[in-house]
Amino acid sequence: MSILVVGSVALDTVQTPFGKVTEALGGSATYFAMAASLFAPVNMVAVVGRDFPKEHLQYLRSRPIDLSGLQMAPGHTFRWAGVYDYDLNTTHTLETRLNVFADFHPQLTPGYEETPFVFLANIDPDLQREVLERIKSPKVTMMDTMDFWIGRKREALEHTIRGVDIVTMNEAELRMFAGTNSVVAAARQVLRLGPKALIVKKGEYGAVLFTDSLYFVTPAYPLEEVKDPTGAGDSFAGGFMGYLAARGEFSPESIKQAMVHGSVIASFTVEEFSVRRLATVTWEEIASRYREFQEFTYFAGHPGPGG
Amino acid sequence: MSILVVGSVALDTVQTPFGKVTEALGGSATYFAMAASLFAPVNMVAVVGRDFPKEHLQYLRSRPIDLSGLQMAPGHTFRWAGVYDYDLNTTHTLETRLNVFADFHPQLTPGYEETPFVFLANIDPDLQREVLERIKSPKVTMMDTMDFWIGRKREALEHTIRGVDIVTMNEAELRMFAGTNSVVAAARQVLRLGPKALIVKKGEYGAVLFTDSLYFVTPAYPLEEVKDPTGAGDSFAGGFMGYLAARGEFSPESIKQAMVHGSVIASFTVEEFSVRRLATVTWEEIASRYREFQEFTYFAGHPGPGG
Repeated sequence: MSILVVGSVALDTVQTPFGKVTEALGGSATYFAMAASLFAPVNMVAVVGRDFPKEHLQYLRSRPIDLSGLQMAPGHTFRWAGVYDYDLNTTHTLETRLNVFADFHPQLTPGYEETPFVFLANIDPDLQREVLERIKSPKVTMMDTMDFWIGRKREALEHTIRGVDIVTMNEAELRMFAGTNSVVAAARQVLRLGPKALIVKKGEYGAVLFTDSLYFVTPAYPLEEVKDPTGAGDSFAGGFMGYLAARGEFSPESIKQAMVHGSVIASFTVEEFSVRRLATVTWEEIASRYREFQEFTYFAGHPGPGG
Repeated sequence: MSILVVGSVALDTVQTPFGKVTEALGGSATYFAMAASLFAPVNMVAVVGRDFPKEHLQYLRSRPIDLSGLQMAPGHTFRWAGVYDYDLNTTHTLETRLNVFADFHPQLTPGYEETPFVFLANIDPDLQREVLERIKSPKVTMMDTMDFWIGRKREALEHTIRGVDIVTMNEAELRMFAGTNSVVAAARQVLRLGPKALIVKKGEYGAVLFTDSLYFVTPAYPLEEVKDPTGAGDSFAGGFMGYLAARGEFSPESIKQAMVHGSVIASFTVEEFSVRRLATVTWEEIASRYREFQEFTYFAGHPGPGG
C-alpha cells in the first residue's frame, strides 16, 4: 500500500564533531520518503525553489517516490544550517531561511486522495489538517509536530491531533505540550485528545509507544559514532509507516515490529551525513540489524517465585 | 547463595515535588541490602553512629540481613540532604555530613570471607579493593563508583576495576571516566581494563549491559509519578545481584533476567520515599511487574525481506 507524505525538502548545512556538509539534501519529507520507500511506494508533497539541484531529484527518483506533488516555485529552496556538539542530542540551529517553504501550500496530485497511509511531517497544523481532510478513506494517519507550533498554534495543533491515528513528538516537545515532566502523564493527555497511539522519540534512548492498552519500548542502536543525527526522527517515522504500509495492517504485533523497523532505519540514517546511508542500505542489512534488536531486548520468562 | 555488601548507611533528608522526609533510612548499603535480601541472604558491612535510630535496625533485621558487620562508632551517623526538582534525573545535594563514615574502615565478621557474591558500593576504591582482596573465592564481584572518586582517586579506581567481574556506573560518570561522549566507546574502554561486564545506569531511560559478546537493554518502568529517585541505582544493583545469587550462576541468560529484576526492584523503590516500598513489595508484585517488562519489550521475529 502507498504512503503520502507532506513536509519539507531542504538544503542542509550541518556540522558535527565528525565533519560537515554544505547544502546537502535534507528536510522532513526527504528523510521520511527515503526511509518509507524502502518498504512501500511514496507520494511526496513538498516544495522546492528553482535553484534545487537536479542531482537531488535523481536521488529521490531512484526510489519508488512519486514526485508529481513536488512543486517547483520561483525563488530559493528552504535552507537550514545547524551544528551539533559532542552531545548529539541537542541541535543548535544557526540559520533557517524558509524561502519558498514560507508560502508552501500543499497540492495533491489527482489520485493522491486515495492514498491509504498518510504522514504529516512537522508543518503548520492548519496545513496538516487541510491535507488530512482531503484524504478519502485513510487506513492509518500519523503526524509529527515541533516546539514552534506548540508555542504558536496550540489550538490548531490540538484540532489536528484530534483527527489523526498516531501522533509523534520528541520527549521535550511532549513535555512542553502537556506542561508536565512526567512522560507517562503527558502521554495520557495526548491520547485523551483522540489518537490511538503516541510515539515519543527519545534520541539516543530510543522511542516508546503508548496506546490505551499497550506500552512498548525500542532502544536506539548502540552506535559508537553518530556522524549526523539530522533526520533521525523523520526516518524513524518513515521506517515505521513504511513497514505498516508494507504489512497493510495496524495490529498490536505489527505496530511493535514497525517501531523496531523505525529504530533500525534511524540507526542507519545517523551513520552518515544527509540521506547517504539511506540511499545505500540493503534489505539484508535491515533484517540483520532487526535481529540484533531482538538480541538486545529478549529475555526469558519469569522463573517463578523461587524465594 | 549469600551476598556481601560494603557501603554506607545514612540518614537522608530528601525533598522532591511529591513530598519530603527527614532523617529517613538511606545509604547505598541499605538500599542494596533491602533489595538483594528479597532474593538471598545478605551480609552487610557498614558503619553508623551511636545516634542511629533503633527502629531502623529493626527494619533491616526483618529481612535476612546479617548485621554483625555493621559497626556502631562513637559519633553521629552519616547524614545526606538532597532535593530533586521536576527533572528527577538530577540530584541537587544540599548537605553531606560524613560523620562516622569519614573514618569508615570495613571489618569483615569471621566467615564473611567465604561469601560468594560481593557488591562494593561507591566507597573509596582503596577500601573496595581491601575488602575484595580478603574474599577467598568469590563467584561474582561487582562494584559501583561515583564522580568524586573518578576525579580524586583515578589510579586507585582503575586498580579496583581491574579486579572485579562487573562494574556499574551511571551514564554521566561513565562519560567522565572515559573522557568521551560515546557510551559505546566508553564502555569498551572500561571492559578493556578487565571486567567481564559493565552496567550503565540511565535513570528514567533504564539500564544497559555491555560484555565482550553481549549488549542488553532494559527500560525503566513507566511510572506516572516518581516520588523519590534516591536509591534507584543501589536497589537496581541489589535486585541484579540478588537474582544472580538466588540462581547461583552467571550465564548470559541469567544476567539478562537479573538486569530485568534490577529494573523491577528499582521501579518499586522510587514509588515511595526511603526504603518504604522495598519493605512491603511482595513476590507476586515482582513477578507481575517482570511479566510487564516482557510485554513492553517483546516483538516477533523479522518477517523476511518482503520488499
